[in-house]
Amino acid sequence: MDADTIQAIKGIAGEENCSTLVADLYTYGFDASIHHRSPEIVVQPRSTEQVSAIVRLANERRVPILARGGGTGLCGSAVPLEGGIVLDMTRMNRIKEIRVEDLYCVVEPGVIYDRLMDALAPFKFSIPTAPGSGEACTMGGMVATNASGMRAIKYGAIRDYVLGLEVVLASGKIIRVGTRTLKNSSGYQLERLFVGSEGTLGIITELTLRITPKAKKAAMIVAGFDTLERAGKCVSKIIAKPLIPSAIEIMDSTCIKAVNKTVKAGFPDVEALCMIEVDGEPAAVEEESKVVQGICNEVGAVSVEFSSDTKQMAKWTYGRKSIMSSLSRFGAGFVSVSLADDMAVPISRIPEAVVAFHKIAERNGVIVGTYGHAGDGNLHTKMLLDPTSEDYWQRGEKAVSEIFDTVIALGGTVTGEHGVGISKAPYFKRERPTAWETMIVIKQAMDPNNILNPGKIAQWEGSILCMLRYPCDKYSE
Amino acid sequence: MDADTIQAIKGIAGEENCSTLVADLYTYGFDASIHHRSPEIVVQPRSTEQVSAIVRLANERRVPILARGGGTGLCGSAVPLEGGIVLDMTRMNRIKEIRVEDLYCVVEPGVIYDRLMDALAPFKFSIPTAPGSGEACTMGGMVATNASGMRAIKYGAIRDYVLGLEVVLASGKIIRVGTRTLKNSSGYQLERLFVGSEGTLGIITELTLRITPKAKKAAMIVAGFDTLERAGKCVSKIIAKPLIPSAIEIMDSTCIKAVNKTVKAGFPDVEALCMIEVDGEPAAVEEESKVVQGICNEVGAVSVEFSSDTKQMAKWTYGRKSIMSSLSRFGAGFVSVSLADDMAVPISRIPEAVVAFHKIAERNGVIVGTYGHAGDGNLHTKMLLDPTSEDYWQRGEKAVSEIFDTVIALGGTVTGEHGVGISKAPYFKRERPTAWETMIVIKQAMDPNNILNPGKIAQWEGSILCMLRYPCDKYSE
Repeated sequence: MDADTIQAIKGIAGEENCSTLVADLYTYGFDASIHHRSPEIVVQPRSTEQVSAIVRLANERRVPILARGGGTGLCGSAVPLEGGIVLDMTRMNRIKEIRVEDLYCVVEPGVIYDRLMDALAPFKFSIPTAPGSGEACTMGGMVATNASGMRAIKYGAIRDYVLGLEVVLASGKIIRVGTRTLKNSSGYQLERLFVGSEGTLGIITELTLRITPKAKKAAMIVAGFDTLERAGKCVSKIIAKPLIPSAIEIMDSTCIKAVNKTVKAGFPDVEALCMIEVDGEPAAVEEESKVVQGICNEVGAVSVEFSSDTKQMAKWTYGRKSIMSSLSRFGAGFVSVSLADDMAVPISRIPEAVVAFHKIAERNGVIVGTYGHAGDGNLHTKMLLDPTSEDYWQRGEKAVSEIFDTVIALGGTVTGEHGVGISKAPYFKRERPTAWETMIVIKQAMDPNNILNPGKIAQWEGSILCMLRYPCDKYSE
Repeated sequence: MDADTIQAIKGIAGEENCSTLVADLYTYGFDASIHHRSPEIVVQPRSTEQVSAIVRLANERRVPILARGGGTGLCGSAVPLEGGIVLDMTRMNRIKEIRVEDLYCVVEPGVIYDRLMDALAPFKFSIPTAPGSGEACTMGGMVATNASGMRAIKYGAIRDYVLGLEVVLASGKIIRVGTRTLKNSSGYQLERLFVGSEGTLGIITELTLRITPKAKKAAMIVAGFDTLERAGKCVSKIIAKPLIPSAIEIMDSTCIKAVNKTVKAGFPDVEALCMIEVDGEPAAVEEESKVVQGICNEVGAVSVEFSSDTKQMAKWTYGRKSIMSSLSRFGAGFVSVSLADDMAVPISRIPEAVVAFHKIAERNGVIVGTYGHAGDGNLHTKMLLDPTSEDYWQRGEKAVSEIFDTVIALGGTVTGEHGVGISKAPYFKRERPTAWETMIVIKQAMDPNNILNPGKIAQWEGSILCMLRYPCDKYSE
């Protein structure tokens, strides 16, 4: 990027909102994934008009531009593959409206999920998608990746809450898509097209989101099993009852051991565990809790614990949320790496999937911790490896490839809630053999100069090898 | 269309599945709207491959092609504005899979909503969008218009149930978008882009839809009010409680009188009425029923009736569903016409909207019946007019224009659940001053020869006059 462009950007956003310091550029080259590439300038825009003016300039001068939220993404969606401009949207963080009677709120993209929940709490409302990174992730980032979390089985992903968006297109033009009404049958649902587009079609500058009443009560059941298959069967049986809990989490012994060791979650020391949450009207919660416990016993659980005490439930939830960090302390010299990290399969295929993951790990001589939102078929695997060992990376790489192949063969998807980013890009076309070309057609029509987060999603052409290696040959400095 | 093309189509689909009889062509020129245009051939395809081959041919020869479902649309989405081929999808009506444990079903587009609900009932599952035309409308048509119904406030519109689609593109290429998993963060949510596209971007040949457990119990409260504003306030108060019923219907005195006269629904003879349904676990239904009744009284209802008896609830529901037909028997020489028929506004603006509609009707000397799904801000108006009177049509036309302007000024949308079709097309660009160009960009990129339902949604360039008059000068024979 030439000095003149840098100067022009500073002129638009104000010198104080821009940085070209090497330390800043280096920092903004990361998200929570293993990938890295420094941008050439970082800007913290304060308004839609600033975003529009910067994008217009970028388009005229053919400079890559990428908007990022909290940087909590685990697969590289917010890593600027081709450098250029990074827009840090976290300063556009106003909650503009909360309209309880109209069941919506209007926010800027930089609003943090937990802050929005705090603001909705006095009205007894929420957006119950509950991502694991709620303390830090932004609403704009959530929509850009179709993020979700533990409660998607009952409450859906963030796509189900997007009513309207203000978006800056590649040309710099500001458009409004969708509505502030709960229903809308007026033409193409563009507001949902931008969901999951990872900044490749436009930059979200305002969001109108549906809000719903908070559940009045919740209760949890933690059931231990002697095999992962049995835990998986428990999940299927609950759903086919039919009973839709607000969450069904599954974890394997690697995860249980790691969590019990590091945060003392007090989970039973078993081969597999289901943590089931039910919520709603108090009487319904009581009834459903009994049904769930009955099914756990029926399937042959080795232990069944119940609690509706908020402290105990918070302890279990904290345990569950600590899996990722706990795995990194599993053994000296090992770190937990997000590679194949959020596959989703049809719910009934979970037992098959987790068993296959374990076999793949064994075959390739790597340690894999498997856990996830079993209720909606979303599984996380974390690989424990010695990051200094070339050999470990190679075995990890092979295991990841096999895991993704397994997931696709089971009718699943390589990414259920984190996005494609860089880590999943090489497998994405394998999963979408007929759809990716249509994505390219839309991308080219909406961003003809290819300035918006270029090289991502359907555009990826790098090798698998390049994706995994860290530092990566091609893209890292 | 030349004889050779007709012959080629017959060769693909089989002579027995095609018709060029004038009576058939005339019939297929209608949907449930006031618009009409005959196609040149009607085909009932039996497979995706047939659809693909016909679309490929249409694309090569630049022949317009339109897919239709049950033809229950009220605004002309299924009327072939430029003639050509109509694909009647109702013979592709297989329910291919019901996977209860995986919370999805796979169906062909011609499956009728009520038939699918019948098939799901033994598993205690459903897709609770409940359109008014459920007996006749097809799943493909519902998705193509983002249809919904009484229960959208609690259960959303059909867009919230679309997990994956098989689509034939303008080129004839068959693609699969979305997944069979509950979550999916793999690139652009194309499956949701096709929702509401009214056959202008592709033809849906298979649908993977999320299913949910049926509510165990329901109850209804019918409350009468002395003004529409008070009924509107009742709606806002219930939602802000917060309490989300499964339905809140509102109707004005014109509708109440019409229904009581024709189907003896037994509604109280009041100025305005709210019919509220709550559903869920039995204990929750009991609790919520009490809360709703309390709010009705608090707001000053002149009558409050409660029932959880299935016969009584069915009677009320039948009364509600009979509004449209009842209005046509309101007075000799008058018919009920769908013009401004499914606007949606933010819920709290309902009192303002309904009062404004009545003033507009009065000012223009027309009779308007207003009712709708107040819980989600979706309002229906039916105009009662003498269809043989030029003067009546002109006044009706003016009233419609003013109603749409009011809705847009209140932050609403001209179509909440029926689609744009022909009736709403002239107002659509007014509602979407910045988004419609992006829709055109996508349309041109995905259908460069403009063969798929041409002239609709953002492409509409006809006048308002032309749209309303029936028979219409420009498009009718």
